[in-house]
Amino acid sequence: MIRVAINGYGTIGKRVADAVAAQPDMKVVGVSKTKPSHEAMVAKARGFPLFIADISKKAAFEKANIPVAGSVEEMLKSADVVVDATPGGVGEKNRPLYEKLGVKAIWQGGEDHEVAGFSFNSDCNYKDAIGRQFVRVVSCNTTGLCRIIQAMDKEYGVEKVRAVMVRRGGDPGDIKRGPIDAVVLNPVTIPSHHGPDVQTVLPHINIVTLAMIVPVTMMHMHVVQMDLKSDASRDRVIQVIEDHPRLGLVRKATGITSTAELKEFAMDLGRFRSDLWENGIFEESVSAIGKELYLFQAIHQEADVVVENVDAIRAMTGIEKDPAKSIAKTNKALNFVAIK
Amino acid sequence: MIRVAINGYGTIGKRVADAVAAQPDMKVVGVSKTKPSHEAMVAKARGFPLFIADISKKAAFEKANIPVAGSVEEMLKSADVVVDATPGGVGEKNRPLYEKLGVKAIWQGGEDHEVAGFSFNSDCNYKDAIGRQFVRVVSCNTTGLCRIIQAMDKEYGVEKVRAVMVRRGGDPGDIKRGPIDAVVLNPVTIPSHHGPDVQTVLPHINIVTLAMIVPVTMMHMHVVQMDLKSDASRDRVIQVIEDHPRLGLVRKATGITSTAELKEFAMDLGRFRSDLWENGIFEESVSAIGKELYLFQAIHQEADVVVENVDAIRAMTGIEKDPAKSIAKTNKALNFVAIK
Amino acid sequence: MIRVAINGYGTIGKRVADAVAAQPDMKVVGVSKTKPSHEAMVAKARGFPLFIADISKKAAFEKANIPVAGSVEEMLKSADVVVDATPGGVGEKNRPLYEKLGVKAIWQGGEDHEVAGFSFNSDCNYKDAIGRQFVRVVSCNTTGLCRIIQAMDKEYGVEKVRAVMVRRGGDPGDIKRGPIDAVVLNPVTIPSHHGPDVQTVLPHINIVTLAMIVPVTMMHMHVVQMDLKSDASRDRVIQVIEDHPRLGLVRKATGITSTAELKEFAMDLGRFRSDLWENGIFEESVSAIGKELYLFQAIHQEADVVVENVDAIRAMTGIEKDPAKSIAKTNKALNFVAIK
Amino acid sequence: MIRVAINGYGTIGKRVADAVAAQPDMKVVGVSKTKPSHEAMVAKARGFPLFIADISKKAAFEKANIPVAGSVEEMLKSADVVVDATPGGVGEKNRPLYEKLGVKAIWQGGEDHEVAGFSFNSDCNYKDAIGRQFVRVVSCNTTGLCRIIQAMDKEYGVEKVRAVMVRRGGDPGDIKRGPIDAVVLNPVTIPSHHGPDVQTVLPHINIVTLAMIVPVTMMHMHVVQMDLKSDASRDRVIQVIEDHPRLGLVRKATGITSTAELKEFAMDLGRFRSDLWENGIFEESVSAIGKELYLFQAIHQEADVVVENVDAIRAMTGIEKDPAKSIAKTNKALNFVAIK
Repeated sequence: MIRVAINGYGTIGKRVADAVAAQPDMKVVGVSKTKPSHEAMVAKARGFPLFIADISKKAAFEKANIPVAGSVEEMLKSADVVVDATPGGVGEKNRPLYEKLGVKAIWQGGEDHEVAGFSFNSDCNYKDAIGRQFVRVVSCNTTGLCRIIQAMDKEYGVEKVRAVMVRRGGDPGDIKRGPIDAVVLNPVTIPSHHGPDVQTVLPHINIVTLAMIVPVTMMHMHVVQMDLKSDASRDRVIQVIEDHPRLGLVRKATGITSTAELKEFAMDLGRFRSDLWENGIFEESVSAIGKELYLFQAIHQEADVVVENVDAIRAMTGIEKDPAKSIAKTNKALNFVAIK
Repeated sequence: MIRVAINGYGTIGKRVADAVAAQPDMKVVGVSKTKPSHEAMVAKARGFPLFIADISKKAAFEKANIPVAGSVEEMLKSADVVVDATPGGVGEKNRPLYEKLGVKAIWQGGEDHEVAGFSFNSDCNYKDAIGRQFVRVVSCNTTGLCRIIQAMDKEYGVEKVRAVMVRRGGDPGDIKRGPIDAVVLNPVTIPSHHGPDVQTVLPHINIVTLAMIVPVTMMHMHVVQMDLKSDASRDRVIQVIEDHPRLGLVRKATGITSTAELKEFAMDLGRFRSDLWENGIFEESVSAIGKELYLFQAIHQEADVVVENVDAIRAMTGIEKDPAKSIAKTNKALNFVAIK
Repeated sequence: MIRVAINGYGTIGKRVADAVAAQPDMKVVGVSKTKPSHEAMVAKARGFPLFIADISKKAAFEKANIPVAGSVEEMLKSADVVVDATPGGVGEKNRPLYEKLGVKAIWQGGEDHEVAGFSFNSDCNYKDAIGRQFVRVVSCNTTGLCRIIQAMDKEYGVEKVRAVMVRRGGDPGDIKRGPIDAVVLNPVTIPSHHGPDVQTVLPHINIVTLAMIVPVTMMHMHVVQMDLKSDASRDRVIQVIEDHPRLGLVRKATGITSTAELKEFAMDLGRFRSDLWENGIFEESVSAIGKELYLFQAIHQEADVVVENVDAIRAMTGIEKDPAKSIAKTNKALNFVAIK
Repeated sequence: MIRVAINGYGTIGKRVADAVAAQPDMKVVGVSKTKPSHEAMVAKARGFPLFIADISKKAAFEKANIPVAGSVEEMLKSADVVVDATPGGVGEKNRPLYEKLGVKAIWQGGEDHEVAGFSFNSDCNYKDAIGRQFVRVVSCNTTGLCRIIQAMDKEYGVEKVRAVMVRRGGDPGDIKRGPIDAVVLNPVTIPSHHGPDVQTVLPHINIVTLAMIVPVTMMHMHVVQMDLKSDASRDRVIQVIEDHPRLGLVRKATGITSTAELKEFAMDLGRFRSDLWENGIFEESVSAIGKELYLFQAIHQEADVVVENVDAIRAMTGIEKDPAKSIAKTNKALNFVAIK
């Protein structure tokens, strides 16, 4: 059993904790929180030992009836791997501690590539992660792009990718972030950073990305256009998506035309937290015109990287050397079959 | 086993179906849908026999790989009780059919009181519903108001209620309804219809309500002010809420200040569909100043009436004559303990 | 003086009326409204004679203290040109009346090309509209696309256009339309209708468009990518935009990164109704990579077609045969100099 | 001519500058900005001399082609009165400078009462401000409450006020602030700070306020309920509003039911920046039941305090000792007649 610590029990951390706990070959040794909150209460309800960065705040937790198991450093000492899901930019500062304690560490996409020196995606470079001490799982948007690009690259070869990301302003539980009534270019300059970020995983891909932020909370929406190296047929593209464990198909018969309805569908299907771990590719949008491919895909910013973190743990510890087997194990433990 | 049909498998209907299926003393004999959709697919996944109003559309369902069990009339013939969860105004038109077939029927709050002649709330008038053929479960907002008013009326006597309802514009999966950036007075006139609607359940209560609509999807927020007949203490009010099976307390220690965080908490706690069947009363807001009481309560428009429908089924069929026992059974079957 | 009637005094109609009234060579003979409202009051305040479609409603207007000048048919008889700004789909039904009365008519982009048989854009085909009886001014999005495509086509030749339109859900004063919290693919299929609509004006342009709707009210945002026939330089592209009377430049020094700030800027500059009649092209976004051009442009859905309607009036009546002169006259009368 | 400096040329400052410039008895000697931006460009376009707090940033402004007239201290030396419209909390830090230079100063409601020691509303305590060196104009919400409370107190006597404020999340041009999809209790505790803030102006008024934030940008909406000391008639209340220079009436005949439509109406009427300087009281909502009064009023957060600042300038300098005359002068110079 791989012993996993989750440093930062927030939007991503709490999901990774549940996903790890569901796996047969790993367990959660602890999660961390900086102050008492409803999420800390959830950790308690789940039975995850709760550790805190600043042990002087122990009384505040106990006053809120939330037991504290110890300091973050103590948590790390009992772990083989730590998943760092602290807010973007904070994770980098934790690296010296992880180095000192010799614990393997996974960062999220909010950190720069350089913090780990290796950026991970299960479909693209699992084997290169085997045995590594430090790995960064790329962001939700980059993960979603890597999956579909890699699938098409294997099938047809990809000459060029142009992608527009229409991003959510904040997560559903985030009450601070806007905008309320604006489309915000983020950045105004072209290209956005997402293209280079895809290249940390797939360095040979020629990609231009543009990004904006809109007042929604549920999912990102991607417009993906690819120039392929050989002619594609729509039927074959859909077949490739159908065969892929983490590419979902939003079928025409569902009548779904939006992120909101797609989340409702995931909810009704009984997915915990209504999570979509897969890319939500809209079947009707898939258009192959000669060597050009167009499609819309919805990306659940809170969820798609969760399964990648689980795979990264397996790769780094070497407990499973075959990416397909890890992906299958991860998915099975979560009862996750991509919608088709 | 009471045999229950759900006519209209949408936002409310799908939740009532799952709640009924979870009860030990009732079962779902069928649900209905007017056209193939993701919700029809969910009915299939749940194993609920699917009936359709217009049998000529059978082919359209089958083309979408959704089997059709028969017509709505056939569904009704196999049922003891039908829960009508069709869109507001449609339910009324179904009454002649229910009368003809002699099936007991429950309508939702989108219909007028007169359609059933009896408006129901588990806490307030369960016993009066025993044996009735037709019952209307009042709307989400009215249900939430009835619960807290009845609780305070039993404890202190209620002289007058003033309530402001800040309503969600549409449900999370609804992509048509606005507003996008406006506060809409609905109605502009004072009082709104909610006060008289409370009086269909609690005729002796003096109540003035005001309502507006804002661009949110998650929950309604109520400002409730009551003039009580005797002095209240904040501690006692909180105690009454703590002891109530369907009044929840959003504790200060959670740090929750909004509808969005409250839904996130319900989600993290593992509530199916992140549903809050209880009133979400904000502990810190409870203020008793002499005979005046103030509080904020969040009302999950998709969920709070679901448990009321289940109780109404028991009352109407007479299978359980004690309201407290029905409420306890309903809650237990859903693993529902109000947050405290 | 060309006599202009405005049939439909709503979002577009009220703006066209003001723009016409500001011109030295035309005047407003009347505007129409179907029921008393704040917009009818504005027509009265402006001194525009108000005509109504259904003369039996005259009493309702008078009760609201809004004088009625007569029927729509009477209004049309006193006009040389009618600008039909009725809701999409209604305009088509008015055509027989316009034919019967022999009045020249302009429809908006909510109608199909076929209703007029000629689709208009001042920059692209002004001369072809000279003397026509029926003209359709293309929609706000199509107008914005035509302007930038035509400008680049004249300079470099355009091989292919790919455009993504992130559309506002409703206008600022529209309280019915959503979505509230969703990205809606509209349509899910690729391409959207906007590409073919551009081709009603610029038939030789190879264009693929995609469109979605988001919960904002202020402006649309376009991602425009073009494959040009010859190498472009960023400086030259910006120069072309600077020289164009209806292409605006949102300069880096403004710090503006969003639709909301751009509207604020137009408001502060004293533009009536904060209108942006020009394309709002973000200077920093303009990227020329060999023969590829990328840019973001904001399109004010309520405003950009207004000046096109004024030009169309001049072309159809033949009062001015030179497009550049009409554009200059229209702009001058509105004190409109595109932001640069 | 009173010489007025505007320290902080943002949402409020830019409006106060324009309002001051429109008055016959005062002029703008300068406005300040901390960095180049579209608002700085607007100051230049208006011809307002621009001063900067940190003179070392002069080059940055000049690079953006915005001339700098000098430092804020220089601006203050040339002024009789400074209107401090810097962000909340910053204004307080400027007090020592104003004291040192002996310039009269006005702060906005984002600062505490103590910063000036006197909180101002034109209707309530103009005469008490005569000759003062330091004055605080209360916030938009408090201003709106003071106006209607004072008007009713003069007519009937006010026993108690209960008010619920449904507040906008951010201003239209603000792209950072949320929430996107939540009702946020702000604060959760009851009462909110608005009641005590009203009492800084009207100390004898018994008032309880509650406040929440919703995802809109256009206006706040108030629910106001008053227990009066004598019976009120609806007609008389409406008459009082009609006779008041800064209480507007949103008439039933307008069909307006929302903040969004009200802003559209103000825009169409030609109000600069679509500003509503008056309370927007919904005629149909005005309900008098014995000694109880209910109404809805919309408050334009960017505008209502602007005219109060102008009056405060006159009171402090003693140039006009009669509040009614100052109010009339201010309104006339802006062509401001409250909608009725």
